[in-house]
Amino acid sequence: MSQEVLSPVLETIVATATAAAPAFAATTPELRAQALVAIANALEANKPGLVSIAMRETGLTEARLTGEVTRTAVQLRMFADTIVEGGYVDARIDLADADFALGARPDIRRTHLPLGPVINFSASNFPFAFSVMGGDSAAILAAGCPLIVKAHSGHPELSDATAAVAAEAIQSVGLPAGIFQLIHGREAGVAVLRDPRIKAGSFTGSIRIGRLLADIAASRPTPIPFFGELGSVNPAFITAAAVAERADEIARGFLTSVSGSAGQLCTKPGFVFVPAGTKLAAAVSAAATELPEHRLLDPRISASFAERRDAILAATGVTPVIAGGVRFDELGHGWVTPTVVTVSLANLRAGREALLEEAFGPLSIIVETPAGTDLASLMPEFYEGNLTGTLHLSAEESTGTTANVAELQALVAAISQQVGRVLFDGWSTGVAVTPAQQHGGPWPATTNDASTSVGTAAIQRFQRPVAYQNAPQAFLPEALRDANPLGVPQAISPAGVSKQWGQRWG
Amino acid sequence: MSQEVLSPVLETIVATATAAAPAFAATTPELRAQALVAIANALEANKPGLVSIAMRETGLTEARLTGEVTRTAVQLRMFADTIVEGGYVDARIDLADADFALGARPDIRRTHLPLGPVINFSASNFPFAFSVMGGDSAAILAAGCPLIVKAHSGHPELSDATAAVAAEAIQSVGLPAGIFQLIHGREAGVAVLRDPRIKAGSFTGSIRIGRLLADIAASRPTPIPFFGELGSVNPAFITAAAVAERADEIARGFLTSVSGSAGQLCTKPGFVFVPAGTKLAAAVSAAATELPEHRLLDPRISASFAERRDAILAATGVTPVIAGGVRFDELGHGWVTPTVVTVSLANLRAGREALLEEAFGPLSIIVETPAGTDLASLMPEFYEGNLTGTLHLSAEESTGTTANVAELQALVAAISQQVGRVLFDGWSTGVAVTPAQQHGGPWPATTNDASTSVGTAAIQRFQRPVAYQNAPQAFLPEALRDANPLGVPQAISPAGVSKQWGQRWG
Repeated sequence: MSQEVLSPVLETIVATATAAAPAFAATTPELRAQALVAIANALEANKPGLVSIAMRETGLTEARLTGEVTRTAVQLRMFADTIVEGGYVDARIDLADADFALGARPDIRRTHLPLGPVINFSASNFPFAFSVMGGDSAAILAAGCPLIVKAHSGHPELSDATAAVAAEAIQSVGLPAGIFQLIHGREAGVAVLRDPRIKAGSFTGSIRIGRLLADIAASRPTPIPFFGELGSVNPAFITAAAVAERADEIARGFLTSVSGSAGQLCTKPGFVFVPAGTKLAAAVSAAATELPEHRLLDPRISASFAERRDAILAATGVTPVIAGGVRFDELGHGWVTPTVVTVSLANLRAGREALLEEAFGPLSIIVETPAGTDLASLMPEFYEGNLTGTLHLSAEESTGTTANVAELQALVAAISQQVGRVLFDGWSTGVAVTPAQQHGGPWPATTNDASTSVGTAAIQRFQRPVAYQNAPQAFLPEALRDANPLGVPQAISPAGVSKQWGQRWG
Repeated sequence: MSQEVLSPVLETIVATATAAAPAFAATTPELRAQALVAIANALEANKPGLVSIAMRETGLTEARLTGEVTRTAVQLRMFADTIVEGGYVDARIDLADADFALGARPDIRRTHLPLGPVINFSASNFPFAFSVMGGDSAAILAAGCPLIVKAHSGHPELSDATAAVAAEAIQSVGLPAGIFQLIHGREAGVAVLRDPRIKAGSFTGSIRIGRLLADIAASRPTPIPFFGELGSVNPAFITAAAVAERADEIARGFLTSVSGSAGQLCTKPGFVFVPAGTKLAAAVSAAATELPEHRLLDPRISASFAERRDAILAATGVTPVIAGGVRFDELGHGWVTPTVVTVSLANLRAGREALLEEAFGPLSIIVETPAGTDLASLMPEFYEGNLTGTLHLSAEESTGTTANVAELQALVAAISQQVGRVLFDGWSTGVAVTPAQQHGGPWPATTNDASTSVGTAAIQRFQRPVAYQNAPQAFLPEALRDANPLGVPQAISPAGVSKQWGQRWG
């Protein structure tokens, strides 16, 4: 708990971020939007060079990485429009009310201010979209918080190159270098997270490291919010009618989702529940016509995947549908093809220690449930929080008019209780970057299930509400002024309504 | 970290709350509104009896307690209207978009669901408004979360009586008893907070206990959010021009705010900064014509106040303006009159160990600042987070046209950085219960400065966002359906806009 002294280099970085905070907080949304778009444009302009480094460092394919740069640029541009539109500050104005139910009420106005310097720990599996200038970084800068990124050790050269591109773009719009700085090394990251000048942390990675960092943030003398996106196995449920209707289509989508990015996605479907006796496993086997070998991100992930895969294959009653494999090269990188297995519900219960933990890589488990299984009860029986849960219905079941509708609705309610996103008739990989997106979920999917790390609501993590009481116009934040110079949505509560509160309900 | 086995009584309570959660989450906002209003009406109908118990247990005055019941009822009614209006679920609908910037986008819709069972630790100093059916409880029930209240040991009989009134009202609208239960005892509260079925905690009280509970919540095997409102000293700044303009008015308001409820309010102004040489202290002394003696809440608070008061009076350079006092009765209750002292800024610096800690009771420190003091720098020099910060300006300064406007704006910015509410020309006690209210602030004012414990936004603490992707209408929460049967505000994002994102800014 005692405060550490930072190294001279880190001290300069944290001091620079801290010094930049007040002026950055006071920038106009337009200027921050210009910075975000300048970064987006610069990333796209430098795409070939950046993708080439990323391919070498991560083993991900050119197609995947090229698409990821585009996604990263789109995220930055989305936040540019989000902050200029202004709804993100949730401006509320309660006009003074002499007739208020509890006696005369002053004028009260509430907006959100940026938290101050934030550290973002990059992910390994999205070297652009959840890394140096990924979604968390975009949200932090959009909110007006100075950003310190802790580079992931899996792509240090790409991190430096991305940072150089971003820094030049930031300076091109006249913003100071102190609003964005990059550091390397886990010890450096932990030291910065512990520093009292840092006001929040974000993270994408493993449960083990995420918990470690979350505990550090919570146990500081001054605790700070920590937004970690950790582990998820993303259970899916497929009805007998859905399998009967379109087994091949479901099998192909499933296989694409399991094997894409070599299965190294937090939203990879790890478990698929189907009624025993349906032909999903056969359809999956038939769909596995072409299974190119892909490299996993690094030797640690490779070793861990091989170990998890061995344990799963060795569990009682586990039958391979697609045998797949892991081949290690001389650098310790694992080269993989997908593995899909089936297991009965009874054997999942018996083998839960081996089977339930996330296997980060191209592996998924089809669980065959006997007739009469209460599917809704399986969610709490087997799982804690997950990022996603999926349900495939037949066309007729989707109308909500079949005999099993109540059972299906109970399953949807059970899934909703334990995930951040409920999908129908699709697969959980591929997270749309949009206003309504929710990429989160109860522990251990995240450390904080009230927040999202994808979509416009992600900016809310880095803001804090402040109310102003009877403030003269000259001393109000612009978002709260009568003249509304920023043109933000203002929710105005008039005088004279409080005595009617609740009248309709009693 | 190991899981404890609950006592049979607590096990029944937690199991009952857990069993009630799904059905309570599925209730209509109208039914929950009826329950909240029924509780409000029942509290008012039972006001004389409840106030009589409260007077005996807390020593607070009849006028104060009667007003507090009204406030409690108004809070409940405000939440009734809030949930029926429906904006609190922040419903967002992204329509499917074949032309999305990153490839075809599915239909995604996002709402908020209740967290599940919540434990609320009551406060001692608001036996109604922050106790059994206070603001936190109202927000928890409004959100659709089963509520377990840990009664404060300072008013156990009142807690039982309030719970009986509330339970009857809840049953009168047909809701089950499991959505609201009362427990007594700190060990019971801690055991419930540790139980994995409990999804969040709220608390109003001391920094020491709040930190203890926050640490328990954060270090559970499954961490949960914990919303504690802890300590605050609420600094105020008064300009020379304001003192010159209306010293007597300011002095009277200050004295009322310091002495109301015997100073036992989290928003009591603990420090007032005025330029040396102004006549505020004299005006305060002159305003202290009538100083009735009041009882403090309990012997522990009484002893603590007497100790803090002695330490402050003994610090170097501290001069009494109103001497006040503490008299102990045979039960150990302290009977107090207000104490106000002055100290120079230099002596505040020299005596910070004795002076800066909160004195919970009727005591405030006037700090006289020498000419040329950079007021904005005093906030970070002396204070961590506070619930409020106050600035008194002259009428001319309020126009923002005086020579010192930049200095005053810098002070407002500095205050904003460290508080949840910035007040002008008023006093911080008396927190309006309204949509724009923010009762929170950085640590140690609260454990979670992104939230408020007063106002309609307080409900957000007990909700969690969930997105639905391509969900058939029959499987969507009502707030997200096309037909919008609840009539909630729906923020609809149309197709075809994403390719324009950021275009204006680069």
